Amino acid sequence: MILLAIDTSGPLAGVALFRDDIPVYEACVKNSLTHSRNLLPMIEEAFERSDIRKQQTELIAVTTGPGSFTGVRLGVETAKAMAHASGALCVAVDALEATARGGMFFDGIVCPVQDARAGQVYTALFEGKTGRRLSEDCGIMMEELCGILTKENRPCLILGDGSEKMTAVVSKYAGLSCRTVFAPPALNYLRPACAAELAVRNRSNAVTWQELQPMYLRAPQAERQRNLVQAT
Amino acid sequence: MILLAIDTSGPLAGVALFRDDIPVYEACVKNSLTHSRNLLPMIEEAFERSDIRKQQTELIAVTTGPGSFTGVRLGVETAKAMAHASGALCVAVDALEATARGGMFFDGIVCPVQDARAGQVYTALFEGKTGRRLSEDCGIMMEELCGILTKENRPCLILGDGSEKMTAVVSKYAGLSCRTVFAPPALNYLRPACAAELAVRNRSNAVTWQELQPMYLRAPQAERQRNLVQAT
Repeated sequence: MILLAIDTSGPLAGVALFRDDIPVYEACVKNSLTHSRNLLPMIEEAFERSDIRKQQTELIAVTTGPGSFTGVRLGVETAKAMAHASGALCVAVDALEATARGGMFFDGIVCPVQDARAGQVYTALFEGKTGRRLSEDCGIMMEELCGILTKENRPCLILGDGSEKMTAVVSKYAGLSCRTVFAPPALNYLRPACAAELAVRNRSNAVTWQELQPMYLRAPQAERQRNLVQAT
Repeated sequence: MILLAIDTSGPLAGVALFRDDIPVYEACVKNSLTHSRNLLPMIEEAFERSDIRKQQTELIAVTTGPGSFTGVRLGVETAKAMAHASGALCVAVDALEATARGGMFFDGIVCPVQDARAGQVYTALFEGKTGRRLSEDCGIMMEELCGILTKENRPCLILGDGSEKMTAVVSKYAGLSCRTVFAPPALNYLRPACAAELAVRNRSNAVTWQELQPMYLRAPQAERQRNLVQAT
């Protein structure tokens, strides 16, 4: 079975191809182009380089959020369009869970963080060794997250594009700081192969292109501003 | 600083580009083509997609072994030729150490294994949390490796292209089996970004293209056969 995984929820654009549950291609890029300029050429490159025809794709995994509104929308729409054209089914993958999977060997709490601006991160907590989810995805102030992690009183791995901002905040919490590990750069981003692997495990929840939906934790900024204007 | 990392020591061909110690591009492929057919087009794609000129490369990281003779020779020769043309320096990266880095969050012994045929693996042991090397690279019978890991009496993470064959052997050692973890497919291969990261840490050991050498643990099969014929 051929599975294509795509991720444009964060700062990197990523593509992976699995054949019979084994990775045959994976690529990530962070450049000056928009995801919309990168994604389709990257998908094309993935199929060409792997010598797989697009028509063979049976499953399309896509990170449906949390993440940037435009990025998530682009990834979901691309997955829908490809599934519509090829008859493949789609699997929604949680971007935080896919990020956390990169730290699955950690003996403690794995805390993926996405920079959500305005002092906030999108996050969820996972058990390192089992990957078991400990909390739902949420947008939260970094200080509040540090408070929660301090109470957990266990080793903690922080990874994802929000980790740089978290470093400064965590350093204010002495108890937390001494038992927190930050992932090095090469292990600090959502890998499309990890998204693919979650989709393999979760393939019984595959949906049609009509049913695939982005998952937003808060309304787009434009909507929030409009609501604010209407309220005043 | 632009760093290019290439790996053709194992079954996957891999390329990564770092700008100022941060990954901007990473790709791996396992297809029906030889590494020699894949590598230069992949390097070309990496630079194009990252909008970086090849001439900007200051450091070229390459896995110099252990691994397949032809694969290691190809990677090293490509690194030498590019460094010769561009004036970049080269950094030799140990393929087992780069593989182990993918399991760096593991609390125990990380044991990367490359299939070396004839019941053997190339391996070395590393401390998970610190990445500290516990033993030198060696070619060893899988049973012998299991004996060593059994004596260590600690949790063990096995990863790399030899792990599938190791699964069957480890299962014969009850004590070892119950505390051994095998990496899932998406985390089971040498990532070129991990090779790049080791090169960043080790850049003080950069050498010229003339000085870069492959690292072989045993003589090529052709040489071994010739020696055998001469000895009889």
